Amino acid sequence: MIPPLRWNDDARRVELLDQTRLPMDEVWVDIDTVEQMAEAIRSLRVRGAPAIGIAAGYGVVLSVRSEVENPQAVALAACDRLSATRPTAVNLFYALRRMRSVVDEHPEADREALFHLLLEEAQAIEREDRAAGKQLGEHGLTLLQDGMTVMTHCHAGGVATSGYGTALAPLVLGTERGLSLRAVVDETRPLMQGSRITAWELQRAGIPATLITDSMAGHVMQQGQVDAIIVGADRIAANGDVANKIGTYALAVLAGAHQIPFYVAAPLSTVDFETLRGEDIEIEERDAEEVRHGFGRQTAPDDVAIYNPAFDVTPARFITAIITERGIVKPPFGPALRTLADERTTSAPDAAL
Amino acid sequence: MIPPLRWNDDARRVELLDQTRLPMDEVWVDIDTVEQMAEAIRSLRVRGAPAIGIAAGYGVVLSVRSEVENPQAVALAACDRLSATRPTAVNLFYALRRMRSVVDEHPEADREALFHLLLEEAQAIEREDRAAGKQLGEHGLTLLQDGMTVMTHCHAGGVATSGYGTALAPLVLGTERGLSLRAVVDETRPLMQGSRITAWELQRAGIPATLITDSMAGHVMQQGQVDAIIVGADRIAANGDVANKIGTYALAVLAGAHQIPFYVAAPLSTVDFETLRGEDIEIEERDAEEVRHGFGRQTAPDDVAIYNPAFDVTPARFITAIITERGIVKPPFGPALRTLADERTTSAPDAAL
Repeated sequence: MIPPLRWNDDARRVELLDQTRLPMDEVWVDIDTVEQMAEAIRSLRVRGAPAIGIAAGYGVVLSVRSEVENPQAVALAACDRLSATRPTAVNLFYALRRMRSVVDEHPEADREALFHLLLEEAQAIEREDRAAGKQLGEHGLTLLQDGMTVMTHCHAGGVATSGYGTALAPLVLGTERGLSLRAVVDETRPLMQGSRITAWELQRAGIPATLITDSMAGHVMQQGQVDAIIVGADRIAANGDVANKIGTYALAVLAGAHQIPFYVAAPLSTVDFETLRGEDIEIEERDAEEVRHGFGRQTAPDDVAIYNPAFDVTPARFITAIITERGIVKPPFGPALRTLADERTTSAPDAAL
Repeated sequence: MIPPLRWNDDARRVELLDQTRLPMDEVWVDIDTVEQMAEAIRSLRVRGAPAIGIAAGYGVVLSVRSEVENPQAVALAACDRLSATRPTAVNLFYALRRMRSVVDEHPEADREALFHLLLEEAQAIEREDRAAGKQLGEHGLTLLQDGMTVMTHCHAGGVATSGYGTALAPLVLGTERGLSLRAVVDETRPLMQGSRITAWELQRAGIPATLITDSMAGHVMQQGQVDAIIVGADRIAANGDVANKIGTYALAVLAGAHQIPFYVAAPLSTVDFETLRGEDIEIEERDAEEVRHGFGRQTAPDDVAIYNPAFDVTPARFITAIITERGIVKPPFGPALRTLADERTTSAPDAAL
C-alpha cells in the first residue's frame, strides 16, 4: 500500500500525496510550512483520520525546521493552527496532544534539539499507526472467510493511514495470504473518496472491486451480493457510537435490515472517552459548492439551499463489532473499549508498537 | 409547471425540453423523426415514466407526418423502434399499445388520415396524464399537513409528466393553496435528476427545497427533519411492489426504520398487472460511464468494474400507501389496485379524463 506522505530528511520537508488529484494523477506536493500543511488538511489533499493525525504531527515539526525565536511558542502556535483545520477527526487532536507534550517537556531545548524531538514524535505516531493497521487487519481477518464480498464506504485504506489502512486492512492482508475476497465500493458523494481513492487502492492491491453509487447500496444488499460491511471511523464515542463519513449511518441501518454484519475498523486512538455519546460529537458542515459543483460542472441551481454535513453518527446498536489493533470488541462496547484502552496505556511491551 | 414537450401543429413536429441540459440551460430541441425521438428517450433528454409514454406517442405520429408507403406498417415499425428504448418504464408500453390499436383499427386509412388519428391519440394520452396528475395531487394532499417537510428522490414533477407531476403534485397543489410545505431533495446519482431537475422545478414553483446527496438521506431522517417521503414509480407490480429510480429501496427501508410514512405516487397506468411481483421486473442496467465520468470529470479509475442499475424494486411491505389519480391505496395493495383499475376501464365518465 501507498503511504499518504513521506518525510524527506535531506530537504527537511514533507512530500504529500495530493489525494484530491486521484485517481487520474499521482501527484506528490512539497510541504514546507505549517500553513501549507494546514491548507492540505483543510482542503483534503491529505485525508482519513489517522493520516490527518500523522500529517499534523509533521506539520508541527515544520514549524521549527529553520531558525525561529522562541521555538516552544512557535511549535505550540503550530499546534493551535493545525487543530483548527478539521473539527471531527479525533486523531488530529490525539496527535497534537502528543506534539504539545514534547514541547512542554522540553522548555529549555534549543530550536534544533526541539526539531529533532518533534520529528521523533511524529515518526513514532506514524510507526505506531502502521503497526496498529497491520494488527487491526489481523483481527479483522478472523471475521472474513474465503470467497466473501465486503462492502466499504468512503476510504479507510493505505493513504488514509500510513500503511494497511483500517477498513481495508483485513481485505489487503487476506488477499496477500491467498484468500479470494471481493469488494463493493460506494463512490461516497460528495467528494467521491470511494471511487477516486478506495477503488484505485484496491486495484493497486489486486483486490477485485465493483464500484457503485451510494444510492445502490440498498439494492446490492437486497440482491444478496454483500457478506459483510467494514467502514472506518473518524471518532468513536465512549459508548461505541461512531462518527464516520456521511452515509455510514444509512449503510448500518440497511445492513441491519438485511442481517449483514456491520463492522467498524479503527485504531483505539479513534476512541474519544471524553465524548460519552454520539450526540455529543460535533458534525462538520462543509461548503455547499462541494455538492453544487460536483465534478467540474454545476449540477444544481444557483440559489437552492444545500445541506452538506461531512459525517453522521451511527448508534452503537447498529454495529456488530468494532475491530481495533488490540482485538475485536462486541456490544456492549463501552466497558470493552475502556478495557482495551487501559491495556494500551499500562502494558509495557506496547511502548514498542 | 413546465411540460416536457409541446406539439407544434404548424411545423408538425415536437419541441422537446432537453432535460439533460437542466438546470443551467432551458433548451428546447426540435424532434422531426422517430429516430430522433428514440434517441431523445434513450439519452434521457425526455425522462420520467409518464413523459416517456407521451413522447413515444408523439414519436409514432412523427413516423407518418410526411409521405410514406404503407403508413400502417411504418407506424407499427415506429412502435417497435420506440419500445426498444427503455425496458423498465411501463408507461412506454402502455402508450405504444394504444398507438398500435389505432393503427390496427384503421387498416384502410390513408397516410394523412392515419396521421390525424395517431395525433389525436397522442394528445389524448397527454391530456389524460395531465388530468390524472392533478387528481393524484388532490388525493396526495390529504396525506399532508401545513408545515410538513417532504423528502423526494429523483424527479417525478412536471417535466416527467405533462403538468403537476406525480410525487411533486401534492406539494405543488398544497403550495398553490397556501400551505407552508418544504422539500428535501436527494441529488440522485448517477444522473442527478434530483439536483438538476427537481430542485429547479421546486424553485420555479416557489417551494422551499433543501438539496442533499443520496448518502445524507439516512442522517436527515435520523435528525427528525423529514415528515413524509413521496417518490414516483416506473412500474408497479400487481402486488404493489414498486420499481423506481435506484436508491428508492434504500429510502423505503430507512423510512421504515424511522417510522416515517413512505408514499408512492403514480398514475394507474404505471401498474402492470401482468407483472405479478417485483422480482419479475426487468431492471435496466446502464452504461458504466455514467458513474465513471460524472459530470465532465473522470472520478474513478479507467478499468474498475462498475455496476449501474437504473432502478431498484421496493417490496410492497415497505410502502405505507400508493397515491393514484383515483384515490389512495393501502396494503394489501393487490386487490385495491385491481379494483381501482377496473373502475377505470368500466366507468363511463372516465373516458373524458
